Amino acid sequence: MIRRYDFGTPIPTDAVVVPVPVGEGSLPHMVTATRGGALSFTVSLGEHDMIFGLGESVRGINKRGFRYRAWNTDDPSLHEGRECLYASHNLLIFSGTCGLFGAYFDDPGNVVFDLGYTDSDKAVITSPEGNISVYLIEEDSLKGIVHAFRGIIGQSYLPPKWAFGYIQSRWGYASEEEIRTIVREHRTRHIPLDSVSMDIDYMERFKDFTWNQNNFADLKKLTGDMGKEHIRLVPIIDAGVKQEQGYDVCDEGLAKGYFCLKADGKPFVGAVWPGHSYFPDFLRPEVRAWFGRQYFKLLDAGIEGFWNDMNEPALFYSEETLQEAIELAESCKGKNLGVEECFHLKDVFQQTANNMEDYRRFYHVVDGKNIRHDRVHNLYGYNMTRAAAEGFQAYQADKRYLLFSRSSYVGAHRYGGVWQGDNCSWWSHILLNLKQLPSLNMCGFLFNGADLGGFGQNTTEDLLLRWLQLGVFTPLMRNHSAQHTRDQEIYRFRRSEDMRRVLTVRYALLPYLYSEFMKAALTDEMLFRPLAFDYPADDVACRTEDQVMLGGECMIAPVYEQNARGRHVYLPEDMLMVRFHSAEDYDLLPMSAGHHWVALELNEFPLFIRRGVMIPLSRGAEWVDAVDSRTLTLLGWDCGHAEYAFYDDDGQSKDAKLEGHVYALRVDAPTEGFALDGSKLIHGEGRD
Amino acid sequence: MIRRYDFGTPIPTDAVVVPVPVGEGSLPHMVTATRGGALSFTVSLGEHDMIFGLGESVRGINKRGFRYRAWNTDDPSLHEGRECLYASHNLLIFSGTCGLFGAYFDDPGNVVFDLGYTDSDKAVITSPEGNISVYLIEEDSLKGIVHAFRGIIGQSYLPPKWAFGYIQSRWGYASEEEIRTIVREHRTRHIPLDSVSMDIDYMERFKDFTWNQNNFADLKKLTGDMGKEHIRLVPIIDAGVKQEQGYDVCDEGLAKGYFCLKADGKPFVGAVWPGHSYFPDFLRPEVRAWFGRQYFKLLDAGIEGFWNDMNEPALFYSEETLQEAIELAESCKGKNLGVEECFHLKDVFQQTANNMEDYRRFYHVVDGKNIRHDRVHNLYGYNMTRAAAEGFQAYQADKRYLLFSRSSYVGAHRYGGVWQGDNCSWWSHILLNLKQLPSLNMCGFLFNGADLGGFGQNTTEDLLLRWLQLGVFTPLMRNHSAQHTRDQEIYRFRRSEDMRRVLTVRYALLPYLYSEFMKAALTDEMLFRPLAFDYPADDVACRTEDQVMLGGECMIAPVYEQNARGRHVYLPEDMLMVRFHSAEDYDLLPMSAGHHWVALELNEFPLFIRRGVMIPLSRGAEWVDAVDSRTLTLLGWDCGHAEYAFYDDDGQSKDAKLEGHVYALRVDAPTEGFALDGSKLIHGEGRD
Repeated sequence: MIRRYDFGTPIPTDAVVVPVPVGEGSLPHMVTATRGGALSFTVSLGEHDMIFGLGESVRGINKRGFRYRAWNTDDPSLHEGRECLYASHNLLIFSGTCGLFGAYFDDPGNVVFDLGYTDSDKAVITSPEGNISVYLIEEDSLKGIVHAFRGIIGQSYLPPKWAFGYIQSRWGYASEEEIRTIVREHRTRHIPLDSVSMDIDYMERFKDFTWNQNNFADLKKLTGDMGKEHIRLVPIIDAGVKQEQGYDVCDEGLAKGYFCLKADGKPFVGAVWPGHSYFPDFLRPEVRAWFGRQYFKLLDAGIEGFWNDMNEPALFYSEETLQEAIELAESCKGKNLGVEECFHLKDVFQQTANNMEDYRRFYHVVDGKNIRHDRVHNLYGYNMTRAAAEGFQAYQADKRYLLFSRSSYVGAHRYGGVWQGDNCSWWSHILLNLKQLPSLNMCGFLFNGADLGGFGQNTTEDLLLRWLQLGVFTPLMRNHSAQHTRDQEIYRFRRSEDMRRVLTVRYALLPYLYSEFMKAALTDEMLFRPLAFDYPADDVACRTEDQVMLGGECMIAPVYEQNARGRHVYLPEDMLMVRFHSAEDYDLLPMSAGHHWVALELNEFPLFIRRGVMIPLSRGAEWVDAVDSRTLTLLGWDCGHAEYAFYDDDGQSKDAKLEGHVYALRVDAPTEGFALDGSKLIHGEGRD
Repeated sequence: MIRRYDFGTPIPTDAVVVPVPVGEGSLPHMVTATRGGALSFTVSLGEHDMIFGLGESVRGINKRGFRYRAWNTDDPSLHEGRECLYASHNLLIFSGTCGLFGAYFDDPGNVVFDLGYTDSDKAVITSPEGNISVYLIEEDSLKGIVHAFRGIIGQSYLPPKWAFGYIQSRWGYASEEEIRTIVREHRTRHIPLDSVSMDIDYMERFKDFTWNQNNFADLKKLTGDMGKEHIRLVPIIDAGVKQEQGYDVCDEGLAKGYFCLKADGKPFVGAVWPGHSYFPDFLRPEVRAWFGRQYFKLLDAGIEGFWNDMNEPALFYSEETLQEAIELAESCKGKNLGVEECFHLKDVFQQTANNMEDYRRFYHVVDGKNIRHDRVHNLYGYNMTRAAAEGFQAYQADKRYLLFSRSSYVGAHRYGGVWQGDNCSWWSHILLNLKQLPSLNMCGFLFNGADLGGFGQNTTEDLLLRWLQLGVFTPLMRNHSAQHTRDQEIYRFRRSEDMRRVLTVRYALLPYLYSEFMKAALTDEMLFRPLAFDYPADDVACRTEDQVMLGGECMIAPVYEQNARGRHVYLPEDMLMVRFHSAEDYDLLPMSAGHHWVALELNEFPLFIRRGVMIPLSRGAEWVDAVDSRTLTLLGWDCGHAEYAFYDDDGQSKDAKLEGHVYALRVDAPTEGFALDGSKLIHGEGRD
């Protein structure tokens, strides 16, 4: 049961799209208090109570013990001391003596979640202005709470099937020649590949919806040629529009008044990649419609997918902050600066980026009223994504496009996926990637993945290999790296064959992963779940945070430590371990519930299948469209008369539904671990 | 066997103090090559080869897979992407198909260790100028290599016994009243405490060897009063000497020419806490003697221990770098800065600190010759520590003083301990603390510990509690935190009683920890060892990096994950788990070799004792001097006729030795896990 409790004058966010009855009386489970203009909600915690949620954030799946903030921020240093990352997903789920309930805090401003941080037995959530809708969700299980929440925020975004293919990306691909080379290097070595994503380098001086006329002279021809190679190009679009007379997007945006304005009525200018830029007011439907139409230029050139970036929005500086810093520096000239003064000077320069004062300088128009940006900050990236999705809908209503965004808020999950922001080539970010999977799923973001190999800093061969072994299971599987870091394409490495083999498993699993993804999306379920959700009575499972459940049948447990040659795995029930070297080469080891140490060489990684069920494995391919989802091998253990409900569709129609697309794969299997060649089975019930 | 191979003109470092024969022919195991002026040493690595060493550095105990640099750096962000920390300890130990050998790279400049980072099957060590002595150590075991290396670098520093007591510290203790309050809060609550360490706030405007005449009016009376409470005060000394006419240390240093000079013959000025400061040339014996005498001022006031800080040396800025930055800012005024220009401007301001150009601006005098600082950078903190130790020796030759430093180089281990630098209140830093213990031990630094609870950022109750549970076992056990972070004294927390109980274990274990420390120091052994050192034939043990061996009898395995209620532990042999709540309250669980999951509530932590041996446990106390090391309980399992070689001494004499100080504790024990009240045993063989 879900009820809504409004406080003050909540700002409409469209996070929730299903009418929710207003609760009677005071908000249960929490003590509400005002402090100055802020409003706080306090939950008393028992010693062993757990808290889930918060989507894209640092630390554990159990969020207890830290203070988080909802403030979408462009800062790539994703260490455990960071209160906010690129996205804000304000769902909490409490479990324990405090009760079993979820609470969604719908306030697009700077909400603070002190979850047993200041006081270990209290969770205190504070809305800065007290204008907030709290949705209280009471169900009899953790899964049930998520399912109910997902029911009110609308169906998750459906990507095209090809988006589940491997994507190669890098900030720095500067010409069509370079892209053709990268594709060729993959194809000649039989490294599977479906897409190349293009960072800002393809644009003409970082202007959205342009492409460099020298290095990408004929984009349409390029997309056509790539199409013959079964490769899609996925260009980036940034939030800021370059300030440049004669640049149509700038001119038109200015003429129509589509950019965010300052209090003096002039457009706000902030510097991002193109230099001085304007920021479309994506919160206005007419601005979204206009911005969405800009994508047509690239769609007309054969593009079928995009990533939206810099949409927190990131601000490198504003003229105001930079000039203030410069003036402060001038005033220090020739002085014997004290340490405090010197630190202050440095801080002022550092804080020219993403400066809170800048976020207070400009306004949006919501329902005809001006609203200062900082009050709706976390809606910005969400509505940029929405603009794109609404544009695609206008362009071709019945087709799915790939779309993923850096910044988001609940609601954005209906329009696109996310990547987990600008990470680093750190081992701890493999684990962060894993832990964010179920948390993002709780908030509706099913299509997501991290920059495999790490975006910032130099990767190493072993790090990329281990990270790919996790990426095999994430819906978005993209290898992405930053300018000036080590080249990170698989074929650059001595162990590229091991990496290629990892990708063969991705493509072999593709029918299963797509099936589980689509079923989860269409039924408001999670593709990835904490073990706590499936085994709430198992104390060890509840506290296990380096393994997650995948779909209805599986559990994953990646190696995330450098130089490790295995790992500890906890099995909450009997499971079959599939230890993969490649799609063709794997061991099957039935294992009993309990603690195990599993040996895993650098080129080995495990998938665990629950006893009594089975999963399909295709014969793989080098691109998604070539995967034969009708010739399947079935993996399982002890599943006599087992059945797998296999979802499949054309991979592109927008009106996806379960009816008519679920096929029962049946097997009368021996009790030992097995891999049955499915060619015998696939034409069974429901198929063809 | 150890041989020395000299290349170019090695700079004398006094790291090695025992003559080592020069090797004949070329350096074995490595391929030597020159590149420009640099000299590189390449070791070819087999897939499973491991590399140990590097003392204080990030990442694993097995250092393979990253690029490290020897460049002592004041930067508190200790994430896994950091190439260099506060100290440089250039020992590597290789094990595998590449051979079994150690190599000490004695070059105090910017040596780079690319250990399978660029190329996963090569370790490449590069000396920037090719002036280096390489000591090649060949023994038949990992332990043997360390023992041999320790044999040539001289006996590790011996702290007084009281230094093993709990130390409370904070940047911000600003008056004697505050210190008296802190002591009182501990004593009234029976929280054990031996010392309070004083950060820069006690000084008069951050001037070394002064104290604030308002807030610490009578330091001698304070140390006397504290002495009655069995508390020692441990003040900080910084490397930089404030530039101030009339300040005797400054005046005398200038008059005698003791500060580092620039090429133009004028003293180099850099800004640190006191503002503009001079930097004593600690590499000169006469400067060390002079600086060492300055400590007498505090020794005369009853001080018996110090910590040396900021001795990388840290530089907040120099006038040169700051003015260059300001001029660059001026030149940007009113311009429409491009993004690159803006980033450059910010970078220039950021890089005013610890700027490489500044480290090239000043000189040391070594053997009468000027040598530019960057060539001997890593010797600076080492020789500041040496200056202090030589001062103590001059002050009272037969007494041990507490001394620990932030920056160090091999050689400094003879003069003092280290703390593991300015860390953060991060869970990952508990694990970093653990992993650095054996690595520091390899390089001679036995007396070390991290800032428990974390220095930067706010701690949380659970983090401090878990970190104390590791700190129980580290020789230096100090709770330290930064200004403007949350108060971190134990009594501030709701679970302070749990924390107090953790400390009771420290004091109960003190006789054992002191005994094992002293035996290790006096015999050139390690107090903490990687499991790989004790179980080299056990592949799982070799790759286990979140457990370490302690002394001859034990293994530790702390919980380092937030919200965990237990952990996986690998036992390479049968062991007795002692699960501590407090010194009086613990469970004994005999466990068989293999993998285990151990339940550990927030207030529980384990110690593992090998089968067939035993350790002594005292009845504890609230300060070290009150610990009765003659009334001992013995913990063990299956050790009929077992014996523990118990070292004890007066805790302060400098001429410590094994002879006459080792007592055989004997027991005829039952085979089950046992705790025998030692009052029956202690007067056995060798004691009294």
